[in-house]
Amino acid sequence: MEYTQLNQIRDWLGQNKAEVAYFSNFESVQYLTGFGSDPIERVLALFVFPEAEPFIFCPALEVEVVKATGWPYGVYGYQDHEQPFAMIAQHIKERVANPINWAIEKQTLTVERFEAIHAFFPNAQFNLDMTPYMQTMRLIKTPAEIALLQQAGRDADFAMEVGFKAIAEGKTELQVTAELEYQSKLRGVTGMSFDTLVQAGAHAADPHGATSEIQMHRNELILFDLGTLYKGYISDTSRTFAFGKPNQKALEVHKVVLEAQLTAQAAVKPGITAAQLDKIARDVITKAGYGEYFIHRLGHGMGTSEHEYPSIMEGNNLELQPGMTFSIEPGIYIPGEVGVRIEDCVVVTETGADAFTHSPKELRYID
Amino acid sequence: MEYTQLNQIRDWLGQNKAEVAYFSNFESVQYLTGFGSDPIERVLALFVFPEAEPFIFCPALEVEVVKATGWPYGVYGYQDHEQPFAMIAQHIKERVANPINWAIEKQTLTVERFEAIHAFFPNAQFNLDMTPYMQTMRLIKTPAEIALLQQAGRDADFAMEVGFKAIAEGKTELQVTAELEYQSKLRGVTGMSFDTLVQAGAHAADPHGATSEIQMHRNELILFDLGTLYKGYISDTSRTFAFGKPNQKALEVHKVVLEAQLTAQAAVKPGITAAQLDKIARDVITKAGYGEYFIHRLGHGMGTSEHEYPSIMEGNNLELQPGMTFSIEPGIYIPGEVGVRIEDCVVVTETGADAFTHSPKELRYID
Repeated sequence: MEYTQLNQIRDWLGQNKAEVAYFSNFESVQYLTGFGSDPIERVLALFVFPEAEPFIFCPALEVEVVKATGWPYGVYGYQDHEQPFAMIAQHIKERVANPINWAIEKQTLTVERFEAIHAFFPNAQFNLDMTPYMQTMRLIKTPAEIALLQQAGRDADFAMEVGFKAIAEGKTELQVTAELEYQSKLRGVTGMSFDTLVQAGAHAADPHGATSEIQMHRNELILFDLGTLYKGYISDTSRTFAFGKPNQKALEVHKVVLEAQLTAQAAVKPGITAAQLDKIARDVITKAGYGEYFIHRLGHGMGTSEHEYPSIMEGNNLELQPGMTFSIEPGIYIPGEVGVRIEDCVVVTETGADAFTHSPKELRYID
Repeated sequence: MEYTQLNQIRDWLGQNKAEVAYFSNFESVQYLTGFGSDPIERVLALFVFPEAEPFIFCPALEVEVVKATGWPYGVYGYQDHEQPFAMIAQHIKERVANPINWAIEKQTLTVERFEAIHAFFPNAQFNLDMTPYMQTMRLIKTPAEIALLQQAGRDADFAMEVGFKAIAEGKTELQVTAELEYQSKLRGVTGMSFDTLVQAGAHAADPHGATSEIQMHRNELILFDLGTLYKGYISDTSRTFAFGKPNQKALEVHKVVLEAQLTAQAAVKPGITAAQLDKIARDVITKAGYGEYFIHRLGHGMGTSEHEYPSIMEGNNLELQPGMTFSIEPGIYIPGEVGVRIEDCVVVTETGADAFTHSPKELRYID
C-alpha cells in the first residue's frame, strides 16, 4: 500500500495549520491505512500529523493484525482495563508537545470520547471537521475498488437467483433467506453486507420491515433486498418477483417502479445532480399516481458500506462524476396491499453508468 | 407496555432539575419505549421531559411502526431531504420554551449531532450524562427479559450442535458456518446476533480473526463462537471441539481453559466483584503457565446486545447482583499453534448463576 490518501491528508493538515487529526471512524482508518476492523465499543483511532509520523491506536488483540498489513508507522495497543485516552495523549505529546488546532471526525466522534481527549488538551480547539473531507475523498472510487464492487455484485446476482428459485407455496420468508445465504456461503461469500430482506405479499409494503415467518402464497409479489461482502466491499440489490398470478394493481405497481428505475439508471451521466436524478425517478412514479407511496430517497452511496455519499435525494445539488457509486432504488409501498422495489448499484462512467448487478429487472414469474 | 422505566426517568429529571433528556442510543429508545430499530445514519431519538409528554423522532418510514407498538405519546417522522434538528427543536419548544439544563447520552451522541442541537439552544448546558444511568438501569434484567435470553440460549445450543456435527475433513470454516446458520434459520431463528466465528487449528489462536476459507483437518481443535437473536435479545456461546486426535499441548490448553471457565462460573454469587471473578479465571490460567496468552477480559455484559455492562475485568469493582447477565469466556491463544475459548452467558441468582447455554463443555471428539 502506498498510503497516497494518507499523505494527501498530511499535506492538507499542513495547509490548514492543523497540528493533529484524530480519525475515529473505523471506515476512515481502513481507507487510509488498509487495516479494517469494527472495534464496536473499544477504541480504534488513527492520528495523523503534518510532519510527525502517524500512529494507530487499537485494542491489544489487533496490534499483530495491523503489523501484518505492512503498516510502517507506530501502532499501540491497550488492554481492556487500561485508560486508552491517557495512553493516546502520551503518544501524541511524544510527537507534538501541545497541539492546539485539531481536526476531528464530527460525524462519528462521540461526546464522551471528545471530552476524554479534550481533558488532556484543555487549550485545544476542535473547529476542523474531517468528515466532509473524508466523504469527498471516498466519493470517487479507484479502479481497484470498482473491481471489488463488481465481484460483490456477481455474488449478489447469484444469491438473488437462488432466492428466486427457492420461492414456494407455504415456505416462510426466513426459509428462503436461509437458502440463499447458505448457497452464497458455500460459494465462498464471507458474509452478507446487511440483513437479507425477503418480504411476501402485503408485508413488502413495509419498506422498513424485517424478514419474518410470514409464509409465501401464490398470486403475490415477493420482494428481495440483499447484499454480499467481498474483501470489505459490498453489493446491494433489490428485485420483486411474481409468484403465480398477482392481481392487476400489483402488476401495474411493478411496471411503474421498473420504468422509474430504468429511466433513472439511463439518465446517469457526469454533470447531472443527485437531486435531478431523484426527481427523474420520482416524476415517473408521481405521474402514474403513486407519488405519495414513494417515501424514501432514490438511493445512497456505497462502497465499504451502504451508508456512504452521495445521497441521491431532493436537495442534494452535488454533480455526479465518474467513479461515484450509489444505489438507484425506487419503490412504491401501499400499506396493507403491495410493495415493490427494484434496485441496482452503479458506478458513474464518462458517458453513463455501469451497474454492479445484472439480474433481469422485468417482472419474472415463478409458479 | 407500562413504561415503568420511562416514568422513572421523568422522576429523575425532575429531581435533577433537568428540563429535557435526549436519548440518542437506539438501544435506550428500545428499552424505554418498546420500539426497536437501528436507524444507521438516520436520526432516531427520544426526548423525555419531567412534566411535558415525551416524543419519539424518527425516519418517516418508521412512524407507523412506532404507533403499532401502542406508543401513546408523540411521534414525528422526517424525510431524508428535511432538516431533522430544526424539526426536533420545534417540537421541544412546543413543550418547554427554552430548556437550559439538558441530559444527553455522551457515549453515543456524536459531536456533529451535539453541535446541531446546540445551535438551536445556544444557552443550553449539557452537563448531565444519561449513559451511566441507562447502563445501571439496564444492568438488572427483569424476569421477562431473562425468559427471552433463555430462549435465545436454547437456539444457540441447537446451532452449536449443528456446527459440531458438521465438522469434516476438508470442509471450510465458512461451509460449517453456512450449515449451522441455515439449520438455525429453518428452525425459526430470525438472525445471528454477531458474525459466527468458526476457526480451525492454528487459526483459532487469533481471537479477533474471522471465519474464512481455511479447511478443517483431523487432529486439530476447532473453535466456535456464535449467538442468535430472539425478539431483540441475544445469546453468545463458545465451544472448542477436538477433530480426530489433537496433540498433547492442545489437549492441555483445553483442560486449563475448561478449569478456568468452570471455576469462574461456580464462583458467581451476589457480592463478588467483576474484578474478583476475572481474577479467579485468570489465576487458573496463570498458574498453569499460560497467563500471557489470555489477552482479553473474562466477559462482557449482554442482553439486547453483547456490549452491555457489567464488564468482567480487572479494575471493575462493581459487586454482582441478582439479575445481572454476562459472559464468562476465558481463552488461551498461542500464536501459530493453538487457540481455545469456552463461553457461557449467565444470570446471577440469589445463590449463584444460571447459564443460558448448556452444551457440554468437556472436550468433545468427532472423527
